[in-house]
Amino acid sequence: MDCVFCRIIAGNLPALKVYEDERTLVIMDIARDVDGHMLVIPKKHVQSLHDCDPDTLAALMATAQKVARHCVNRCGYDGVNLLNASGESAGQSVAHLHLHLIPRQKGDGIDAWPPFEGARTSIQETYQRIRMT
Amino acid sequence: MDCVFCRIIAGNLPALKVYEDERTLVIMDIARDVDGHMLVIPKKHVQSLHDCDPDTLAALMATAQKVARHCVNRCGYDGVNLLNASGESAGQSVAHLHLHLIPRQKGDGIDAWPPFEGARTSIQETYQRIRMT
Repeated sequence: MDCVFCRIIAGNLPALKVYEDERTLVIMDIARDVDGHMLVIPKKHVQSLHDCDPDTLAALMATAQKVARHCVNRCGYDGVNLLNASGESAGQSVAHLHLHLIPRQKGDGIDAWPPFEGARTSIQETYQRIRMT
Repeated sequence: MDCVFCRIIAGNLPALKVYEDERTLVIMDIARDVDGHMLVIPKKHVQSLHDCDPDTLAALMATAQKVARHCVNRCGYDGVNLLNASGESAGQSVAHLHLHLIPRQKGDGIDAWPPFEGARTSIQETYQRIRMT
């Protein structure tokens, strides 16, 4: 069992568990890069968004929503950011699907938008590449 | 109808439609901040993750996954980033739930991780504030 999240789920590595149910687990991210940083993880090992079955994906999002509502309704936050990287090129560091969830409050000084440097290709060219309609 | 996404969905504002089905719409984001920037939107007007019903949330994620797989399987990308801001304090600019979806490929030079400046509060303190277990 090489997967660090599977080891946490199995109880073989410690973690600060924020929420847990049959299908999902939410833990504190220990990176300490931003206050409140959590990871929402399916207990089933799926690598990324790409190979996730519909039931697992729905359960993952339901848990993200549950924790987000808890933060807003009971913990003094008034918003959340969700981030996901699926695929190594997207910056995914652990090959087990996870959502980053960051609770937010007015005046927290957090910038949760990536430092995008502008598009390099025309929107029409990119659109023709990816359109499904 | 003040909501810009509701106007696009109703056909009263133009948009580059990448994908559309009964419940969801995917359009190109015209901000031009990063190549391939798409918005995944439920047709039903819900404000954010917080007030989204389970069916709409599942449909939204199924569409995000469908477009992500299309990008990876057919368009030469090998990953995606998903971003969501729910609530004004989180940076939500349009009060209609939307996911940002950015297709990624090796060497694209994109940094999709926010410029977090480090946690200010101890992890134990934050954990005690938000834990549900």
